[in-house]
Amino acid sequence: MKIARLAIIGVGLIGGSLAQALREADAVEEVVGCGRGKANLEKALELGVIDRYTHDTGEAVEGADMIFVAVPLGAMRATFQAMRGHLSPHAIITDGGSAKASVVRDAGEAFGELPPDFVPGHPIAGTERSGVEAAFPTLYQNRRVILTPLDTTNPEALARVEAMWRLCGADVTQMGVEHHDEVLAATSHLPHMLAFSLVDTLAQMDEHSEIFRYAAGGFRDFTRIASSSPVMWRDICLANRDALGGMLEHFTAELAHLSDMLREGDGERLLEIFERAKSARDRFTD
Amino acid sequence: MKIARLAIIGVGLIGGSLAQALREADAVEEVVGCGRGKANLEKALELGVIDRYTHDTGEAVEGADMIFVAVPLGAMRATFQAMRGHLSPHAIITDGGSAKASVVRDAGEAFGELPPDFVPGHPIAGTERSGVEAAFPTLYQNRRVILTPLDTTNPEALARVEAMWRLCGADVTQMGVEHHDEVLAATSHLPHMLAFSLVDTLAQMDEHSEIFRYAAGGFRDFTRIASSSPVMWRDICLANRDALGGMLEHFTAELAHLSDMLREGDGERLLEIFERAKSARDRFTD
Repeated sequence: MKIARLAIIGVGLIGGSLAQALREADAVEEVVGCGRGKANLEKALELGVIDRYTHDTGEAVEGADMIFVAVPLGAMRATFQAMRGHLSPHAIITDGGSAKASVVRDAGEAFGELPPDFVPGHPIAGTERSGVEAAFPTLYQNRRVILTPLDTTNPEALARVEAMWRLCGADVTQMGVEHHDEVLAATSHLPHMLAFSLVDTLAQMDEHSEIFRYAAGGFRDFTRIASSSPVMWRDICLANRDALGGMLEHFTAELAHLSDMLREGDGERLLEIFERAKSARDRFTD
Repeated sequence: MKIARLAIIGVGLIGGSLAQALREADAVEEVVGCGRGKANLEKALELGVIDRYTHDTGEAVEGADMIFVAVPLGAMRATFQAMRGHLSPHAIITDGGSAKASVVRDAGEAFGELPPDFVPGHPIAGTERSGVEAAFPTLYQNRRVILTPLDTTNPEALARVEAMWRLCGADVTQMGVEHHDEVLAATSHLPHMLAFSLVDTLAQMDEHSEIFRYAAGGFRDFTRIASSSPVMWRDICLANRDALGGMLEHFTAELAHLSDMLREGDGERLLEIFERAKSARDRFTD
């Protein structure tokens, strides 16, 4: 497959790495970048990630046969709205948002109805760094990309997006929008909430940062994700609030059981939980 | 300082590394090992960690001027009981237990009253591995060791234990027993509970291990501590159940606030928490 003109809306780690990977695979002729920050776009140009740029989304998508939207979840709807009236007849739109129901809702509302060539997607990849300077062409190699096609999605558009990600070395799977949001709430959004919340709880208990002085390596690993972008995570939490809220309630109920076990000194049941957890974790990290 | 005879009760990662570090510092003449497993003690002998061993705690402490107890928290009381009637007049006893109130209680009950030469301690060090083969002489270099001396503690005994740890390269601090247990509940015991509990919750939701397939690097870091020893952690949770129970309740209340914010779509307060957490974490990992 070959993309004649790829429009990357939001040229950061995710969008920039996609462009670089497709260039390395010789799968794209021209890359148009779009974003708000001039410095970042100039850098993208200098690094050869994009061929030209504009700050105008409508202009960026003109003539593009593939459009990748990698803006924060809170900016999705406005981005889709800005595309209206500028899309080529066969332009395929896909995105990299970490929650899918909200993106689908935003697209539906922005376009009036869901465009058949819109393929919602989510590459499960990233580092703690951000911006185009953090981008690299092998980011997606052996990483999972989840596509969540809708009933209305054109199978040819789906096949092209899938082929695009495979060219980047990704392992592409499909699931329903709701299921995606539940899986990600469990494995990513809830853990981030817990890490942020734990660090904040301790910081508030601890006027003199004394507690943190005694935190060993395990704590550092456990709370690493609390160093992620607060704005990005606020957007994700709000976008996936239904699934995340459910997971959070479920987990809070589990913690209440743990409290009971502690109060009752029920070592047997504690051990059972810890053993089941260790064996599950050892299994999935094999 | 020089130790004439060091008795290590429980020759694993923690006890073995102490013996090795003191040998490298040329601070110990003889090391007597004590434990239940013959294979592990033979290995300790072969590695030169100990000079001789016995399975009998009473025999192990005879003639020792320094005794280091590195058995699981659940075995502390029986270990102290087995020492009675075998201690030299000036034998100093210290330990490596991760919770201190329970060890102090166990010692008081086992000895009838707290021996003045008992110095409760806790080296904040360790790896995911265990057993004497995991031991290494630099384990304690630049790591914190917390001593929690009691009103009854002989200052000379305290000074000797402090000097011993400094010879291992550790950064020794003192705090009260209760404060230690609160600090460790916050930075270590609660995070372990959360990690075990999260992995177990997901494993139970997930009949086909499908969820874990989409877990990325952040989740792996976050749950690494759920691969720790379940038996050790059951013991720690039970031993520190008061402080840990308090932390758990406090944290559960925080999660309830988060649930409210999600339900209300209160992005401003979410962002505030995430920003405060990120800035606290970035500060303490500087």
